[in-house]
Amino acid sequence: MIILGLDPGLGTTGWGVIRAEGNRLSHIANGRLKTDSAAPLPARLSHLDTMIAALIADRAPVAAAVEEVFVNTNPQSTLKLAHARGVVLAGCGRAGLVVGEYAPRLVKKAIVGTGNAEKVQVHAMVARLLPGVRIDGADAADALAVAICHAHHLASARRTG
Amino acid sequence: MIILGLDPGLGTTGWGVIRAEGNRLSHIANGRLKTDSAAPLPARLSHLDTMIAALIADRAPVAAAVEEVFVNTNPQSTLKLAHARGVVLAGCGRAGLVVGEYAPRLVKKAIVGTGNAEKVQVHAMVARLLPGVRIDGADAADALAVAICHAHHLASARRTG
Repeated sequence: MIILGLDPGLGTTGWGVIRAEGNRLSHIANGRLKTDSAAPLPARLSHLDTMIAALIADRAPVAAAVEEVFVNTNPQSTLKLAHARGVVLAGCGRAGLVVGEYAPRLVKKAIVGTGNAEKVQVHAMVARLLPGVRIDGADAADALAVAICHAHHLASARRTG
Repeated sequence: MIILGLDPGLGTTGWGVIRAEGNRLSHIANGRLKTDSAAPLPARLSHLDTMIAALIADRAPVAAAVEEVFVNTNPQSTLKLAHARGVVLAGCGRAGLVVGEYAPRLVKKAIVGTGNAEKVQVHAMVARLLPGVRIDGADAADALAVAICHAHHLASARRTG
């Protein structure tokens, strides 16, 4: 099955597409969707919406995954993130995709084995789990990580029936 | 000119459409867009997106307005609101609408004359400013209020050149 992982952001949304066959994972593609920081907010969100729709049409995933979001120390950036995340999730919903949502700790645990892992450990492990991958920056690495987490989750859900 | 005011929310998005000719305001329509709280988040956001697109196509506004959003005492509801607001703004952007954003204080000041006004005062004043209006609940009243605020703002911007 083809799984689309997404790391939403107003400026940059990372994405990663993997194929999961049983416990075997392989990389298909990854990248970044960028909006113009000089454009007004509605135009940026609409552009993001268009790019997400094109990505889904292009890669035809059957499942999607994103990290859960929490209000952190910078409420204004969290709000921007949530605006972008709403658009990204609406795009998945429009395409009929079920979206797995995972806490950041859970993603780290699924990839590295511990919920306290550093970003750099997660990214290194993503590269090891997807041989031959060339990762288009940190946002794409995060997107691949949540896609892998979702693949593990679906595989273990199948095992436990 | 026809102005669309929006009060975004994941469960209920209030909307109000007014006509502004110089200083003269008149009511066109108002209502609520509701999503099914039992549906998954992506489906709810996608449904909201569809309804916003239909509303804009139906009423053909030339400008739109929403309140600014802040992280309040309930971060989880603020995040839900920001997801919905992102979808609503993307819908406006897709339609090429410029969206005026106003702090809640500013909306109250524009309608009642003071930024500390109670909701009920704002709603009573909205009803007075739009003779004959029948308001479809508090969310629609808030949407009409921000539309009126935007009309005042545009009129005063024209006066000052």
